[in-house]
Amino acid sequence: MKSRAMVLEKFNHPLVLRNFDIPNLPEGAILVKLLASGVCGSDLHMAKGEDPRTPLPIILGHEGVGQVVQINGEKCDLNGKKIKTGDWIIWNRGIVCNNCFWCKVSRQPYLCPNRKVYGINLSCKDYPYLLGAYSEYMVLFRETEILKIPQIDPVCLVTAACSGATAMHAFDLISEPLLSKTVVIQGAGPLGVFCVVAARTLGASQVIMISGSQQRLELAKKAGADIVLNRHDINEEERTKKILSITGNRGADIVIEASGNSKALLEGFRLVRRGGMYMITGVAVPQESIPLDVYHDLVFKNIHIQGVWVSDAKHLVQAVDLIAKHPEIFERIVTHRLPLSQANEALKLIEERTALKVAITF
Amino acid sequence: MKSRAMVLEKFNHPLVLRNFDIPNLPEGAILVKLLASGVCGSDLHMAKGEDPRTPLPIILGHEGVGQVVQINGEKCDLNGKKIKTGDWIIWNRGIVCNNCFWCKVSRQPYLCPNRKVYGINLSCKDYPYLLGAYSEYMVLFRETEILKIPQIDPVCLVTAACSGATAMHAFDLISEPLLSKTVVIQGAGPLGVFCVVAARTLGASQVIMISGSQQRLELAKKAGADIVLNRHDINEEERTKKILSITGNRGADIVIEASGNSKALLEGFRLVRRGGMYMITGVAVPQESIPLDVYHDLVFKNIHIQGVWVSDAKHLVQAVDLIAKHPEIFERIVTHRLPLSQANEALKLIEERTALKVAITF
Amino acid sequence: MKSRAMVLEKFNHPLVLRNFDIPNLPEGAILVKLLASGVCGSDLHMAKGEDPRTPLPIILGHEGVGQVVQINGEKCDLNGKKIKTGDWIIWNRGIVCNNCFWCKVSRQPYLCPNRKVYGINLSCKDYPYLLGAYSEYMVLFRETEILKIPQIDPVCLVTAACSGATAMHAFDLISEPLLSKTVVIQGAGPLGVFCVVAARTLGASQVIMISGSQQRLELAKKAGADIVLNRHDINEEERTKKILSITGNRGADIVIEASGNSKALLEGFRLVRRGGMYMITGVAVPQESIPLDVYHDLVFKNIHIQGVWVSDAKHLVQAVDLIAKHPEIFERIVTHRLPLSQANEALKLIEERTALKVAITF
Amino acid sequence: MKSRAMVLEKFNHPLVLRNFDIPNLPEGAILVKLLASGVCGSDLHMAKGEDPRTPLPIILGHEGVGQVVQINGEKCDLNGKKIKTGDWIIWNRGIVCNNCFWCKVSRQPYLCPNRKVYGINLSCKDYPYLLGAYSEYMVLFRETEILKIPQIDPVCLVTAACSGATAMHAFDLISEPLLSKTVVIQGAGPLGVFCVVAARTLGASQVIMISGSQQRLELAKKAGADIVLNRHDINEEERTKKILSITGNRGADIVIEASGNSKALLEGFRLVRRGGMYMITGVAVPQESIPLDVYHDLVFKNIHIQGVWVSDAKHLVQAVDLIAKHPEIFERIVTHRLPLSQANEALKLIEERTALKVAITF
Repeated sequence: MKSRAMVLEKFNHPLVLRNFDIPNLPEGAILVKLLASGVCGSDLHMAKGEDPRTPLPIILGHEGVGQVVQINGEKCDLNGKKIKTGDWIIWNRGIVCNNCFWCKVSRQPYLCPNRKVYGINLSCKDYPYLLGAYSEYMVLFRETEILKIPQIDPVCLVTAACSGATAMHAFDLISEPLLSKTVVIQGAGPLGVFCVVAARTLGASQVIMISGSQQRLELAKKAGADIVLNRHDINEEERTKKILSITGNRGADIVIEASGNSKALLEGFRLVRRGGMYMITGVAVPQESIPLDVYHDLVFKNIHIQGVWVSDAKHLVQAVDLIAKHPEIFERIVTHRLPLSQANEALKLIEERTALKVAITF
Repeated sequence: MKSRAMVLEKFNHPLVLRNFDIPNLPEGAILVKLLASGVCGSDLHMAKGEDPRTPLPIILGHEGVGQVVQINGEKCDLNGKKIKTGDWIIWNRGIVCNNCFWCKVSRQPYLCPNRKVYGINLSCKDYPYLLGAYSEYMVLFRETEILKIPQIDPVCLVTAACSGATAMHAFDLISEPLLSKTVVIQGAGPLGVFCVVAARTLGASQVIMISGSQQRLELAKKAGADIVLNRHDINEEERTKKILSITGNRGADIVIEASGNSKALLEGFRLVRRGGMYMITGVAVPQESIPLDVYHDLVFKNIHIQGVWVSDAKHLVQAVDLIAKHPEIFERIVTHRLPLSQANEALKLIEERTALKVAITF
Repeated sequence: MKSRAMVLEKFNHPLVLRNFDIPNLPEGAILVKLLASGVCGSDLHMAKGEDPRTPLPIILGHEGVGQVVQINGEKCDLNGKKIKTGDWIIWNRGIVCNNCFWCKVSRQPYLCPNRKVYGINLSCKDYPYLLGAYSEYMVLFRETEILKIPQIDPVCLVTAACSGATAMHAFDLISEPLLSKTVVIQGAGPLGVFCVVAARTLGASQVIMISGSQQRLELAKKAGADIVLNRHDINEEERTKKILSITGNRGADIVIEASGNSKALLEGFRLVRRGGMYMITGVAVPQESIPLDVYHDLVFKNIHIQGVWVSDAKHLVQAVDLIAKHPEIFERIVTHRLPLSQANEALKLIEERTALKVAITF
Repeated sequence: MKSRAMVLEKFNHPLVLRNFDIPNLPEGAILVKLLASGVCGSDLHMAKGEDPRTPLPIILGHEGVGQVVQINGEKCDLNGKKIKTGDWIIWNRGIVCNNCFWCKVSRQPYLCPNRKVYGINLSCKDYPYLLGAYSEYMVLFRETEILKIPQIDPVCLVTAACSGATAMHAFDLISEPLLSKTVVIQGAGPLGVFCVVAARTLGASQVIMISGSQQRLELAKKAGADIVLNRHDINEEERTKKILSITGNRGADIVIEASGNSKALLEGFRLVRRGGMYMITGVAVPQESIPLDVYHDLVFKNIHIQGVWVSDAKHLVQAVDLIAKHPEIFERIVTHRLPLSQANEALKLIEERTALKVAITF
C-alpha cells in the first residue's frame, strides 16, 4: 500500500508530490485515511521558511480528519469509546509529554515544551514518515488524543483542529455566562468567524465583527454577528462611538483579537470596557512592537488581557461540538475545496486572501 | 389618584380588593403603573401562612413589570440610563442594605440579611403602602435596582423577576462554557423551563428534562430540551440508563433540581457524573430530610453541590436578556392571563397545577 | 539483589515478610530504595478485605519516599529536572491513563477510571512485582509522576503522598485568598492536622479544630490551630455558639470534614456560614446515610458542598512544598517510626488510634 | 468644637493650617477623631496639580483611621457590628453609588464611575467640609463602608486604606493557592512591601523583590522576601537568569508591578513564566507608552496581564486582617511620624524618597 503526500523539501519552493510506502505501525498507533485536510495560514509561513520549528523535508498539514484503517493494539477516544476500523476521527494536532509542569501541575498542556505537532515539527524523513495531513494516509502515535466524530461533511470539521480549538481556548477562559455581554471580534478570517459562532452559541447578547473585507463581513453576519463594521467604510472613531452607543457608553465586555495584526490592539484597548477582558488569539508570528499606554490602556481600565496560545484536547472537543451544532455555517466557512495534488494552488489562494478557508479533499 | 390592589388580610382567606390613595413619594422613589404581575408559587405559601416572613395586611406580588408614572428626584437604571416618565421597567424584588458582609465583602448580595422584598415582607399598612405587585400602582424605594426593558409583551418578562433570576443565579455559578456539556433539569415548572431555555442559549450540547407532566414536557421540548423524560412512563432505572447511554457512560455534567421536591436529589445524585455539578434551586420551603450517602453520593463522586438562594441584580439583568432573545418561548410559558380582580382565581390555577405560569394583566 | 517486603496474602491475616528478586526494569522505569513509607488508615481497611479493589497477594503501602537506584532510560521529574541515580524522590501514588475524559477534557485526572495505585490495586504476583511501599525497593513505571525532594527527614514527607495531597486537593478548589476567612476543620487525624497547617500557611484568619482526642488537639494547636474544641468537653450547641461568636454571628467561611465520619456533616451544616463552602475529604469508605435537610442545610444556606476524592500531581507538589516549609511540624505528626518487619505492629497502632501517623523507616 | 486641618488652597503652594467648625452631621453620618493619617504619593501629585480630579480648596488625606466621636443615627460596620462612640474604625476611602453596572452587575464596585473619594475629589468648601484625613476630625457620610479595627498602633493601619487595599485587590484575583508559586514584586515602596507581606502570608513558596534602594530591600527582606535583588548591583540579564535558575527555568508564576514605572513591564514580561500572571498595580499616573511585543510578550507566553485599579470594601477588610497579623512589620513600614502641622514636611519626605511611608499622628 502507498500513500501520496505533498512534501515541502525546500523553503520557497513548491511542495512536491511524493509516494510513500505505508510503514508498519508503531505500537498503539493508528493508520488513518484522510477525509479532509485544512490549509492553514501557518502552512504558508512554513513553506516560506518563516517558522523556525520547521524540519525539512516535511509533509505539511496539521488539520486533518480521517477514517481509521488500522490500529496496532487497542485505543479509546477521549470519550472512552473504543476506536474501531472504519471510525471517523479527528485528533489533537499536538502531542504532549504528560510529564511536565504544564501537563501535570499547572494544567495548561497547550504550553508543554515537549509538544510535537503533526505537520509542523515532525519530519517525513523519520519513521513512521506519514506525519502530516497533506497526505492520503497518516500515522497517529499512541499518545495522540483522538475523538470520534459524527459523519457530517468532513470539510466542516477541519476548522476544529487548529483555529477552532484555539478559539475555544479563548472562550474556555471566560468564567461567566456570555449572556448580557457584548463581544467584539477583530478580524474575519477562519479564527474570527469561528469566534463569532462561538460567541453566538454561548449566548452573547451582542456580537460585533470588525474587518476590512466586505465579503468576509457578510459571512460573519451569516455566522451570527449582530453588527459588522467595515474598517474601510467606518473609521476608528466612528467604530468606537458605535460600540459605546450600544453598550451604555461602557464599551465591550470582551474583545477578541483574531486579526493576526498586533496593531489591532491599539483599537481594542479603546473598545473594551473598564473591568473587561481582551483575548489576543491571532498574533501567531513575531511582529513589530506596538506602543502600550500602561496607565490608560491597562491600569485605569482594570482589564484582563489574555494571551492565547494554541489549544488542547478539551478545546478540540468543544470545537467539534460547536461545528456539529451548526454544520451549515461551517460549510460556508470553507470557501474552497481542492484535491491533494493542488496543495500549492491551495496555499496560493490563502496567500492572495481569495479564500476564507481552503480544504484538501480526497 | 387611586390604586386598586389585592390584599392578603388574613391567612387562608381570599385576597380582598382594596382602594389605596396614591401616596406622596419618598425621596428618590418611583411610582410605577403595573403592566403585568407574575403569580408565583410562593404567593400561595404566603396566603396559607406558611411563610413566616409574611406581615399582615400585605399586597402580594413580587414579580412585576411596569411603566414609570412619576419620579421624586433623579434615578438611573442599572445601565446608567436616566429613568424617565413613560419608561418600561423591571426591578429587583429584593432591596439590599449595601452595607453588610454579604453585600460588600463576600459579594453575595442575595444573602443580605437585611433584604426587604416587595410583596413578601413589606406590609401595606406602612407608608408608602403600595409595596406589592398585585396592584395597579407600586412605589419603588430609591434603593431599588431598576432596569429599563424593551417593549415586548410584558407578561413574558414577569418570569425574569423571580424564578428566571434564580435560574440565572445557578447558571452564573458555572465557570466554564456549557458547550460539550450535558445538562439535566429536574422539574418542568416555570423555574425548570427557564433553565431549559438558559442551558440551550448558553450552548449546552444536550439538555434533558425530567418531569411528571406530559403537557409541561411538551412545553420544555418547545423551549429547547433535546430529550424529555416522563417520570410516569420511564422509571428511574431506565432514566439513569438513558442518561448514561448518551454521556459516554459518565452521567450528566450538570444536574439542576428545579422540582421543589427534596426527594429529587436521590435521583440527581445518580445522574450527575463524577466531578460534575449539582445545583439545588427549587426547594424553597422546608421539607422532610432525605438520606444522604456521603461516600457514594458526594466523596467518591467528587461533585460540587450548590444550594441556590434567590438572586440579585446581575441575575435579573441576565434573565431579562434571556427573555428578550426568545419572547416567543416565554409567551408560551405564561399559560394564563387574568385581570387583577381575579387574583384569587390565579392562585387557584397555581394550586391545582392547571397553569404553568399565570400573569395578572392590566 | 533482593528486596524484603511485607505482603498481604490473605485478608485478616498478618502481613508476611517475603524476599523478592529485584526484577529487570521495564522501559522507562525507575528502581527506588525506600527511605520511609507511610502507614495509612486505608491499609488497615485493605488488610481486612474491606476495600474491593484489593488484589491478593499484594505489597501494601501507597505512601513512599525513596532514593533512585537505577533508571532504565531517561526520565524528568515534574519540574523538568532530569532524574539521576542517588536523587531523593516522591511520586504520585496513582498512575493515570492520560487519555480519558477526566485526564484530558475535564482536567480532573484524580477521577481517571483507569487509575492504578501502588500498594492498592497492583498485585505483587504481576511483573515487576515490587509495586508497594512496604518494601525495601520499589519499581516505578515510566508513567509515574515523580518529584525530586529536598533532603529533609523523609518521614515528614510520607504524609504528602496521600492525606497531604488530598488535603491540598481541597484547598486548591478555594478560589479566593484565605485571608479574612475562618476555617473549621473536623477531625484531627493526619488529614485534619495537614489541613490545619495548610489553612494557616495559606493565610486563614482563624483556624479552628474540632476533635475528640485531647492529645491530637494539642498537636493541632502546635500545627497552627487558633482554637481547638474537644467534643467531649464542649457540646455541639456550645461549639456552634463559640464559632458564631467569633465570626460576627455568621459561621465559618469554610468547613472541612476530615473526620472520616459521615455524621460530622450534621454539625458541619450548622457551622458553615450562608454562602460558605463545605469540603468533604475524610469519608473514604461507605457508611450509613445521614439525613439531609435540603432546605435548611443547602438551599437557604446557599452553600457549596464539595466532595473531594484523592489527588493528582499538582496536589502532590503543593503538599511537598507545604511540608518543606514546616518540617518541624510534620516530624511531630509522625508519632511513631517502626522498621519494615514490624508493619503488622504499625497497623495495630493505627487501629488502636494510639498513633497519629506511623512511618516505616529503613 | 473646632477641627484643625491642612488645606490645599492653591496648587504648588504649601498646605495651609485652617480651623473648621465641626458641622452638624448629615443623617447617618459619623464624626471621627483621627488617630493616624497616611501620606500617600498621590497626595503629592494632587498638591502639584497633576491629578485632574482635585477640587480646590481641599483637605488632603485619603488614608485615615480614627475613633468615633458622634453618630447621627444608627450604623453597623461591614461585619454587622453596631458602631458606637469610642470605637476605633477604618473606612473605605471611596464611596460608591450602589446603583450602577459596576456596583451591581459586574460586581467590580472599585470601578464605579460615581465613586467619591475622601481627600481626593471632595472639597472642603462643601458641607460637611471635613472630608479629608489631614484633619483632626472627619465626617463620614452614611454610605461610607466602615470596619471596626483592633486597638493596635494606628499608624500600622493607615497602609490598609489605600496601597494595602490595592495590593489585596491584586491578590484577590489569584484563584489558586500561592503555595508552590514564585512571586516576583517590582518596586519596594509601600505598595510593593505590602505585596511582599501578602505573598508571604498567603503561602507563596518564593517571594522575590526587585528594587533600586538598598534600604528598602532590607525592609522587604524583613517583611518576608526570600530574595532581594538590587537593580544597581545586579543587571537585568543577571536578574532574569537568577529567577529562571530558581524556577526550574520557567520564570515566575506571578509578577506584580508595584514600582509605578511603566518601564518595569519590559523586564516583567521576561520574568513571568508561560501561562503565568502579571498584575500591574503601581502605575497610577499617565506616562510615556512602552513598546509591547505582542507575539513574544503576550501570545506565545499565554499570560494573563491584569490591570489593577484601586480597591473596594472586600480588599480593605483583607488588608486590615493582614496588618493585624503582622503589626510589627507594618510599624517598620511607617518610617516617619509627624504631627498634623508638619504635613508639608511629610510631603517633602515622600518627594525626596527619604521615607518609605509617613504617617500623621495626633
